[in-house]
Amino acid sequence: MNKNRKMWGGAFTSVPNDLAWSFGQSFRNDLALFDQEIAISIAHAKMLGMCRVIPAAESRRIVSALKAIKPSDLDPASEDIHAAVESALREKVGDAAGKLHTARSRNDQIATATRLWTRAASKRTQARIKKLQSVILALAAKHSDVPMPGYTHQQRAQPITLGYHLLAHFWPLQRDGVRFEQLSEACDSCPLGSGALSGTPFPIDRKLTASELGFSRISPSALDAVSDRDFVGDALHAIATAMQHLARISQELILWSGAEFGFVKLSDAFSTGSSIMPQKRNPDSCELIRGRVGKTVGAWVAFQTMMKALPFAYNRDQQEDKAALFECFKLLDDALELTANILRTAKFHTSKMRAEAGKGFSTATTLADQLAAGGMPFRQAHEIVGKLVLYCEQYGIEISEVPAEHLRKIHSCLDANMLKSTDVMASIASRDSEGGVGPKAFRTQIAKAKALHTKQGFLQNG
Amino acid sequence: MNKNRKMWGGAFTSVPNDLAWSFGQSFRNDLALFDQEIAISIAHAKMLGMCRVIPAAESRRIVSALKAIKPSDLDPASEDIHAAVESALREKVGDAAGKLHTARSRNDQIATATRLWTRAASKRTQARIKKLQSVILALAAKHSDVPMPGYTHQQRAQPITLGYHLLAHFWPLQRDGVRFEQLSEACDSCPLGSGALSGTPFPIDRKLTASELGFSRISPSALDAVSDRDFVGDALHAIATAMQHLARISQELILWSGAEFGFVKLSDAFSTGSSIMPQKRNPDSCELIRGRVGKTVGAWVAFQTMMKALPFAYNRDQQEDKAALFECFKLLDDALELTANILRTAKFHTSKMRAEAGKGFSTATTLADQLAAGGMPFRQAHEIVGKLVLYCEQYGIEISEVPAEHLRKIHSCLDANMLKSTDVMASIASRDSEGGVGPKAFRTQIAKAKALHTKQGFLQNG
Amino acid sequence: MNKNRKMWGGAFTSVPNDLAWSFGQSFRNDLALFDQEIAISIAHAKMLGMCRVIPAAESRRIVSALKAIKPSDLDPASEDIHAAVESALREKVGDAAGKLHTARSRNDQIATATRLWTRAASKRTQARIKKLQSVILALAAKHSDVPMPGYTHQQRAQPITLGYHLLAHFWPLQRDGVRFEQLSEACDSCPLGSGALSGTPFPIDRKLTASELGFSRISPSALDAVSDRDFVGDALHAIATAMQHLARISQELILWSGAEFGFVKLSDAFSTGSSIMPQKRNPDSCELIRGRVGKTVGAWVAFQTMMKALPFAYNRDQQEDKAALFECFKLLDDALELTANILRTAKFHTSKMRAEAGKGFSTATTLADQLAAGGMPFRQAHEIVGKLVLYCEQYGIEISEVPAEHLRKIHSCLDANMLKSTDVMASIASRDSEGGVGPKAFRTQIAKAKALHTKQGFLQNG
Amino acid sequence: MNKNRKMWGGAFTSVPNDLAWSFGQSFRNDLALFDQEIAISIAHAKMLGMCRVIPAAESRRIVSALKAIKPSDLDPASEDIHAAVESALREKVGDAAGKLHTARSRNDQIATATRLWTRAASKRTQARIKKLQSVILALAAKHSDVPMPGYTHQQRAQPITLGYHLLAHFWPLQRDGVRFEQLSEACDSCPLGSGALSGTPFPIDRKLTASELGFSRISPSALDAVSDRDFVGDALHAIATAMQHLARISQELILWSGAEFGFVKLSDAFSTGSSIMPQKRNPDSCELIRGRVGKTVGAWVAFQTMMKALPFAYNRDQQEDKAALFECFKLLDDALELTANILRTAKFHTSKMRAEAGKGFSTATTLADQLAAGGMPFRQAHEIVGKLVLYCEQYGIEISEVPAEHLRKIHSCLDANMLKSTDVMASIASRDSEGGVGPKAFRTQIAKAKALHTKQGFLQNG
Repeated sequence: MNKNRKMWGGAFTSVPNDLAWSFGQSFRNDLALFDQEIAISIAHAKMLGMCRVIPAAESRRIVSALKAIKPSDLDPASEDIHAAVESALREKVGDAAGKLHTARSRNDQIATATRLWTRAASKRTQARIKKLQSVILALAAKHSDVPMPGYTHQQRAQPITLGYHLLAHFWPLQRDGVRFEQLSEACDSCPLGSGALSGTPFPIDRKLTASELGFSRISPSALDAVSDRDFVGDALHAIATAMQHLARISQELILWSGAEFGFVKLSDAFSTGSSIMPQKRNPDSCELIRGRVGKTVGAWVAFQTMMKALPFAYNRDQQEDKAALFECFKLLDDALELTANILRTAKFHTSKMRAEAGKGFSTATTLADQLAAGGMPFRQAHEIVGKLVLYCEQYGIEISEVPAEHLRKIHSCLDANMLKSTDVMASIASRDSEGGVGPKAFRTQIAKAKALHTKQGFLQNG
Repeated sequence: MNKNRKMWGGAFTSVPNDLAWSFGQSFRNDLALFDQEIAISIAHAKMLGMCRVIPAAESRRIVSALKAIKPSDLDPASEDIHAAVESALREKVGDAAGKLHTARSRNDQIATATRLWTRAASKRTQARIKKLQSVILALAAKHSDVPMPGYTHQQRAQPITLGYHLLAHFWPLQRDGVRFEQLSEACDSCPLGSGALSGTPFPIDRKLTASELGFSRISPSALDAVSDRDFVGDALHAIATAMQHLARISQELILWSGAEFGFVKLSDAFSTGSSIMPQKRNPDSCELIRGRVGKTVGAWVAFQTMMKALPFAYNRDQQEDKAALFECFKLLDDALELTANILRTAKFHTSKMRAEAGKGFSTATTLADQLAAGGMPFRQAHEIVGKLVLYCEQYGIEISEVPAEHLRKIHSCLDANMLKSTDVMASIASRDSEGGVGPKAFRTQIAKAKALHTKQGFLQNG
Repeated sequence: MNKNRKMWGGAFTSVPNDLAWSFGQSFRNDLALFDQEIAISIAHAKMLGMCRVIPAAESRRIVSALKAIKPSDLDPASEDIHAAVESALREKVGDAAGKLHTARSRNDQIATATRLWTRAASKRTQARIKKLQSVILALAAKHSDVPMPGYTHQQRAQPITLGYHLLAHFWPLQRDGVRFEQLSEACDSCPLGSGALSGTPFPIDRKLTASELGFSRISPSALDAVSDRDFVGDALHAIATAMQHLARISQELILWSGAEFGFVKLSDAFSTGSSIMPQKRNPDSCELIRGRVGKTVGAWVAFQTMMKALPFAYNRDQQEDKAALFECFKLLDDALELTANILRTAKFHTSKMRAEAGKGFSTATTLADQLAAGGMPFRQAHEIVGKLVLYCEQYGIEISEVPAEHLRKIHSCLDANMLKSTDVMASIASRDSEGGVGPKAFRTQIAKAKALHTKQGFLQNG
Repeated sequence: MNKNRKMWGGAFTSVPNDLAWSFGQSFRNDLALFDQEIAISIAHAKMLGMCRVIPAAESRRIVSALKAIKPSDLDPASEDIHAAVESALREKVGDAAGKLHTARSRNDQIATATRLWTRAASKRTQARIKKLQSVILALAAKHSDVPMPGYTHQQRAQPITLGYHLLAHFWPLQRDGVRFEQLSEACDSCPLGSGALSGTPFPIDRKLTASELGFSRISPSALDAVSDRDFVGDALHAIATAMQHLARISQELILWSGAEFGFVKLSDAFSTGSSIMPQKRNPDSCELIRGRVGKTVGAWVAFQTMMKALPFAYNRDQQEDKAALFECFKLLDDALELTANILRTAKFHTSKMRAEAGKGFSTATTLADQLAAGGMPFRQAHEIVGKLVLYCEQYGIEISEVPAEHLRKIHSCLDANMLKSTDVMASIASRDSEGGVGPKAFRTQIAKAKALHTKQGFLQNG
């Protein structure tokens, strides 16, 4: 415990209570901000020198010393990372260390460090998204001709292709990319120099530090700048939304790898066994991804509940924003990487998919569409095909097996020739409107996706 | 109950259970989508005619009839708005109504209608934000010279001005504006023509309907298009974040209007009384805004919990997204309007603020800054002023009242002349770094805010 | 709008703003409390008469008049139900109506009314739980001998019986019942007579009103009594937990009714069709129950966010607690009823279950258990059977099909005789430990469940 | 990394992927369950010996070896604590270790361990609650005669006493105690022996292990027993609710310690300073407690989102329940301890409270009550006193300062003699109904609280 190296205390008559100290200590979490903290201090020290707030020589000494500080130099018993860095600096440059805190406050420091960290994390996440998209594009291209059942309401609806299904996962990730780009942009404003809440009397140059740290803008109001955690909320929302997309993939793989679907076998490398059932192969990685969407949703809620009705400027409650932010970004990055690897190494049972694609009257819509194309109101065509399906269910047969004479009994418009449209591949081929499962539409869609994917960054498109 | 006018049922052998029907009925909520539903049907019917999917004459008849439908024509016992409109249409054009559903599905219809609605709502909200910002700008300009205590940790920290404090509320709203602009952009992709999940075999022109409805893009994947509710989550996040900003203003006004602060008197028009205490004047509107941030946070959670692990394409669970979306937009719009009016009609007790601004050693930092400006390390200056404060607390006096001879006893660097910096207006004037409370910095900040405010739309800036 | 019939205003110089009024108006939601409001007023008026706070004759007049008020007598433009009832009373008894508010406040009234309502709602819900449990018990008994695959990690694990599976749903509902009983007990304390926050100077008898309203206790602190909404949080937690249990049943039925599982066919009465796919039969009621667990989780969050950091006594924020409470109870009650009916009318495809029960090496554990029973460490037995499974997978055969000579090659301890344990019915019969799937254990379990079910109320047991 | 000491793998052909392994590794969190894990294994081994499932001598050897295992013996690279303990055991007793897993599964083990842990944690928390209640009772008794303003809507309402205010905090804690008692009871059912999902073929005696571990009951259904995490949700709800009560105390202390209220000075031991403002004394511990209510609300949400639509039996998602459970219990326990110490060491500025108690027309209700006691309808009395208040506001005087001749102008019923009731102490003394602030009511209340507090356990009472 290092309660005596705190950055304040002149007006205090007793030392902090032990439990209060440990309850509030944030050093371990803050350590994630080490790089940012050092960079900020260097930029600030340089600027203080250039603006002659402190002598140029002292500025140089402080900057050199800061560059030499390593995480292991910091005292883990420090109150927070700011105190730890200042202490480490003091050991190198003596009392001059005390000059570094001229014209700044922990309030603007922590806001700046958290923005820098979030911007960098957001970049990393964008790269992971691109990587998972690559895997999806490759798999979609590979499986473009494999028919499988398509579902609505989790019930078989119309036959689609595996390639088409997989490619649909590209677009939510694209939107995730956009969200993280917008997050980077939201973070791109530098609070440094805002002081505690009202600026500083020293003749500082905020644009200089902002530029040194790679920010495009400086925050316009010091009071708002030290209060604002909107970007943390935005980050947690973007993370939770992306985790939902990964959880959907996971849920799909969990079901598809079960005996009932039998559509996929996950690699042993991403499965685990049972301590008691020797035959089990559990999709644990997928289950963990699915379950941890909860953590990210909970993190957003924890943040919002904490912020509710907080007044302007820094309040200690806000310390709570960071641990969850760090943890959730790590979680999402791991989940993106895992999902890419799980998909890449999965073995799709395409013959099973093919065999199932046409079962369960999945091409009934195509038959109704054909009647409508002949001029019958679609609502009536729907009704007639519905009766045909009911007939088949009663006899336990597929539509293609209905005897010609019975067809006409169901409705005079039906004849055996029409049933050709109920062939799976014909049905798939026919749905060739833009965005559809048909071959031309699919080629257009995947070309569009590939083109977007090779671009730097992300664009709205879905 | 109108269970027989449902849009399906050919293959069904029994009617819906009453409770199941009422449990699932969404007509009342859907009614908010009336305009969108009609516009979509008109655009679709026109396109079907132009692409010769249905005869041009029928297309024209359907379009005319659709234009004539009024909300009151719809049967409130309908399953949903789609069924209601089709029924109303049937009464006008007979069986031709059945042709309207060619090449579309309720799945792409509802996705399209919800996007149209959200885009329009987002525009309305942006206008409300601008309006509240106007009020804030006017008040900030008016009160630019009124000193008041500034707070961190809800404790008095440094003197600021009321104008500076109020102006800080401009920037969170600016970020809200950006968020709603991004939402509009996210909604600007048309799912119509996606069918149930895989497109349609009819030779439709999706760009035509998209353009007719004012969309810039068509959705690239039919499967993703009918599944995607990301924009609903984005909307709820943007709403909750904006409500947090309004709740902060409300919390401020609730405290400020209390006897302890005494900084403001809310208009009777926005207060209520007590049924039992005749003297009470309760800031009910502010309390309701503060409390209802909960509803918007809860709505985001409800949405995320509902979406968790849902498979692709439409699932009935998704019906749950709309009621909360409609309600939360209305809530935010009302809260924006109310906040504008409450602020505009509030009476700020500026003399009370002025009287309190310098109390509680609020200018101690300025004194420490002055010592640091003289070359002393800030950390040491902080320590010395801390001891001075402790001395004052023990004797119950302000810093300016410390006898000169005692000053030197506390530290040799202190002299009576320095205490001038502890004057409130001098302290405020000194903190003139960019974004600070000083007069030049304030003029720059408000000019920047006004310039942004006159622009159409919103830009990142904080 | 009836802003002039408010219950306060002597000290006010302007009328409420229209938007503020409508923003705060709670009459429509409060109407759910009509019975409670009247009962409370009657009890209070009687007590005021008996304690001679008001003349006995006036007490009797007020009581008679209150008994005659019907919901339709209330002015829907009233601020809240308290104002509406007082107005309606005034029309019947004139100025004497003004005496009813002696020694009470809206703060203690609303706390009392909400507790009364919640206690009654909790009773209703308990009855619905019992009803659903009946259906489950009957189905479990009926299907006690039907083998089916049992799952862990959503993968086939060990064969169980349908009866055993269904009976497992009894116990979570039993815990729900306990939770609602505890809720009733938590509500059973009467705040009436607490006044606004500090009691009243009138010589009232709180035990009298409490007893008249059927409460067992009076709240010990007036200040806590008007502040406390713990029971609302408890109710929302109990509701969300119960909804999770129903959502699990729904999720099960959605998957089981799909072509892949094929374990159940839901009645047409609880399914809906597709507007476009004639063959579809969607489990919409189940999907809605599953999706609406989100609403209840969101309602708890909305409540907690609203309560966060609220000070003692009534704050207007708390108005937000009721609409969600009413809605969520209704939702749960409907979902309990629906689930009972869906299960009762579902057709279980027992032959499909039977056919699938033994597939996928589901009895491998039983084989390992047998080896362990012979003295081999279980861990080693698990390893050996794991290798046997791997062998079978490579050859695409079931364990029972492994040639005897190959068995010994895998491990010397294996012989063909042992494979008898891999028979499904033998495996099920063997797991007869308490709580297990075996026949004796099942009979014990269902007997225990039935015994609990016939008791009034619920007891902890799982 | 110790991927080869996993408890399964016979049927696996490749080792786990590194990221998948680390993503799923739970050892570090599980370590909190060390005591429970060992106790369970000992109980299980004893029972296996007594039931002759394994030889008595082996049972004894295993039990002795288990007793000797220390946390430091466990390999931190283990998959989970179950694997780690089995490995450590193997080093002591060789292959016999493999026999310990006979007739059990990780599924029933983890359910049992988590219940044991939660029951113990709940006991600890109950003790902390009692401790905080002691502090409150002592302070309430000490300050029973100190008048202070009472608030509704955060506005001054009626004068109360500090003792009365503090004592109100006793009751929410009492309800928290009840909630944790109910949690203990909910945990008191032993799942051990449930196996993976369907029991075991070994002749085990579940009541024996349950009793050895101090459980009152065994879980009735093995399938429900391994699935059920209701008690985790109950724990998180109880924790969040208790944190709300502590956050309310913290919010109170934060405001009261500010210059505006000036009602309390927190000990330096529970305050921190500012790195920049020498005079600051920030109530950081209170802010952290207030902010961390968010973490507990988020944890409940994370749990519910994770559980949503999970099927029966163990799913790996459920691993997510424990880290938050452990963390939230620790958080609440620390917050209870801190709050007790903060309150105990706080200095209440009773003279400031006394000076403020009667300001702001806080006794106006008492005047209206007096008019009503004279037979005037309360509603009319309210109206008259409202006008009197308006008069006073216009002239900037207190009610007691209104000249007698003006009184009669406001209403003929008013005379100077009546104004005696507006004396603060008289007003307080008059509100002596049960639960009220009056002296007799207060003595009754505190006596009741003390009596409950000395009882073991908690009882419903508010």
